[in-house]
Amino acid sequence: MLEIDKLSLNIPDTTKPRVIIVGGGFGGINLTKKLAGKDFQVVMFDIQNYHGFWPLLYQVATAGLEPDSIAEPIRKMFGSDEIEDFHFRHVRVTSIDPATKTVKTLIGDIKYDYVVIATGTKSNYFGNDQIKLNSFPLKRVTDALNLRSQFLQCFEQANMIIDPETRQSLLNFVIVGGGPTGVELAGALAEMRKYILPTDYPGLDFNKMNIYLVEGLDRVLPPMSPQASEKTYKYLNKMGIQIRLNTLVESYDGHTVTFKGGEQIKAHTLIWAAGVTGAVVDGLPVQSVERGKILVDRYNGVLGCEGVYAIGDVALMKTDKYPKGHPGVAQPAIQQGKLLAKNLKRKIRNESLEEFEYFDKGSLAIIGRNRAVADLPGNIHLGGFLAWVTWLFVHIMYLIGFRNKLVVLSNWLYKFFTYENGTRLIIRPFVRKGDRASEDFIEKFRIE
Amino acid sequence: MLEIDKLSLNIPDTTKPRVIIVGGGFGGINLTKKLAGKDFQVVMFDIQNYHGFWPLLYQVATAGLEPDSIAEPIRKMFGSDEIEDFHFRHVRVTSIDPATKTVKTLIGDIKYDYVVIATGTKSNYFGNDQIKLNSFPLKRVTDALNLRSQFLQCFEQANMIIDPETRQSLLNFVIVGGGPTGVELAGALAEMRKYILPTDYPGLDFNKMNIYLVEGLDRVLPPMSPQASEKTYKYLNKMGIQIRLNTLVESYDGHTVTFKGGEQIKAHTLIWAAGVTGAVVDGLPVQSVERGKILVDRYNGVLGCEGVYAIGDVALMKTDKYPKGHPGVAQPAIQQGKLLAKNLKRKIRNESLEEFEYFDKGSLAIIGRNRAVADLPGNIHLGGFLAWVTWLFVHIMYLIGFRNKLVVLSNWLYKFFTYENGTRLIIRPFVRKGDRASEDFIEKFRIE
Repeated sequence: MLEIDKLSLNIPDTTKPRVIIVGGGFGGINLTKKLAGKDFQVVMFDIQNYHGFWPLLYQVATAGLEPDSIAEPIRKMFGSDEIEDFHFRHVRVTSIDPATKTVKTLIGDIKYDYVVIATGTKSNYFGNDQIKLNSFPLKRVTDALNLRSQFLQCFEQANMIIDPETRQSLLNFVIVGGGPTGVELAGALAEMRKYILPTDYPGLDFNKMNIYLVEGLDRVLPPMSPQASEKTYKYLNKMGIQIRLNTLVESYDGHTVTFKGGEQIKAHTLIWAAGVTGAVVDGLPVQSVERGKILVDRYNGVLGCEGVYAIGDVALMKTDKYPKGHPGVAQPAIQQGKLLAKNLKRKIRNESLEEFEYFDKGSLAIIGRNRAVADLPGNIHLGGFLAWVTWLFVHIMYLIGFRNKLVVLSNWLYKFFTYENGTRLIIRPFVRKGDRASEDFIEKFRIE
Repeated sequence: MLEIDKLSLNIPDTTKPRVIIVGGGFGGINLTKKLAGKDFQVVMFDIQNYHGFWPLLYQVATAGLEPDSIAEPIRKMFGSDEIEDFHFRHVRVTSIDPATKTVKTLIGDIKYDYVVIATGTKSNYFGNDQIKLNSFPLKRVTDALNLRSQFLQCFEQANMIIDPETRQSLLNFVIVGGGPTGVELAGALAEMRKYILPTDYPGLDFNKMNIYLVEGLDRVLPPMSPQASEKTYKYLNKMGIQIRLNTLVESYDGHTVTFKGGEQIKAHTLIWAAGVTGAVVDGLPVQSVERGKILVDRYNGVLGCEGVYAIGDVALMKTDKYPKGHPGVAQPAIQQGKLLAKNLKRKIRNESLEEFEYFDKGSLAIIGRNRAVADLPGNIHLGGFLAWVTWLFVHIMYLIGFRNKLVVLSNWLYKFFTYENGTRLIIRPFVRKGDRASEDFIEKFRIE
């Protein structure tokens, strides 16, 4: 069905400067919006045909939201009635050649005047291929759907198992990484355990379901304030989540988690939310990549590569205030995308450019029903219900698309008043790469 | 991850009569609801963990609705707070042994007092394995998601193809089967072509997108009235759908559709909605199966097998009014499920049983925005906007679950006023069994 050798990028020639954007995340989307007009031809490449609101991905994994609530097709955002001379191509970029100003893709090359790398991050397994093979990532819509089916299948099987040790392993969920993803996922699982699962599986004893949250540093939510970390720890603790601080995972073979120091836990499910690294595109000079990210100046220009830019999570901009770069959240990407659009417009008019200055709007994390933490500008630290309402408001505000806001809001209200999650459908038979039983599974337990 | 050898059905012993229901479709669900009480232990097996509202499946395929809008988890419907002594097991039934009153599953056997086969239908390829391998079915949620990704990938590729012949093949969609599924899918595709796709793909000429609807008989919607067929033909025609009546497909290799008579169409996508056959469970005596269905008496009892029942689409009940059996729609299944529950209760009290009499509430099909056809009792035949409103009302009414109704209604209203479908996300890399390019696809175009 795929006709790779017959495909070409098929992008019209233009006399306008061509901006190529690699990646439709927060950075790429905001850049595109602001570039719209008559000045440029804009070309976007992504291997997904949608922009995702990743801060809510954990809700897809825990059956609270469906994918369409947190993702918006790129072509829908930038349809021909919205932006002219915009060209989306659902294809993988293989490398960039700054010498010839060319972007190379699987199906052909294209010249650029400006290229913006906005590829974000990918999971970092720190070289541990065994963990990569056997764990569940939570970076994409498909990951979240896999994880949802995995959770539900674990409960279905725990309900039918004879051997108590295997049952316990099916009911042990180990989340590695105490950042926002790990914390929010742990909280959502704990709420499922309390409000949903005992009714769904009356034959199972959910006192035996364990949620482990494993963090290598000495506090949860390390990117946030110590106050937020402390509150979060208390909330998680109260919700019955087993928190292991200063703990590193050494190995996981799909059945046994081994921590550094030797302690072991049997678990059928390990979620890897322990780290990310920049999804750097090939072809850049070695000296422009540092610690897996692309070094950029205050205008997001890649050092030593004229016309090449990087924004958002894949970029590393060292400033006096942020000597190690900006936090890996949506706001720097959004703000850099918007500013870069302005600067590119200035550039073609030979106007002077504006340096990027990060405006910190604060950070938020949700732990459960009525419970969240917020660090706001001016050293304000909120907790509890007030932070939760702030969290709701901010997330609804930033969600793309009117329809998504409506669907998410109605889902949340429904959930809030009924304690009932939306959907618990097992629709993905493939669960993880290292799953040796998956062929057997498809044959015998096939669901399609 | 799957521990087949360690699993057991794990269903508690009981002194009450045990009713085993195979299948959570319209029949099984309604039977369960009415059986609830203190009289029986009810055990349900299904290979899906949800009940689907299949009449709306085509809307999932055409990116109008998400799966959770048309599917409800069985455990959510029959949670421990709703029904006691109900046991759902997400496992495949392999056969039934009427001699020993045993249901056999992949992970163990279980005795029954009554067993009800409510397995519905499966696609019928009339022995043509080539078509089975290369075509897309539309029977399950996963089929609909596959088909949605296929549609979108065809447009993405058509937008990037050099060769005009291959482009045309990507833009040819052949729907085989002019029943409700085929008609409704064709209508929804035509609406996408008119309202959505030209904005999403400004580079593509959608006058060249062809939707073929192929039917072996001499009219579309053969189960409905001639009036409905005639109106539907007119509507489809006006929407630019190419209808081929009295036409049979001889072969399809994934690229070329060959009709009986020799005519050929190049098409990357063929949807098989041409026929179904009963999903008969193994182990029944040969004489109780006729034309792929299970012969039952007026009480839905399987002839010659005491304690074995079949309801809905898998059952064949010949009556004076319906000498060839009842229509393959939801209503006979619902009504048989409800009546069988009553009769089983009567049976254990030694009361006399009630014969099944089908109450025809009418049939409906939707062709597009504002256009539907309805055959109502009393020989009333509606068309156009009135039938469309009836269709909306009936489908919302019958949709399971308050939340689903809300989501579907808000989606429809949104779509009605904006001409905008909800979601066009490509989330399934595997498209069909015979797709030789799929490994290549995953490697090169992988989306997860």
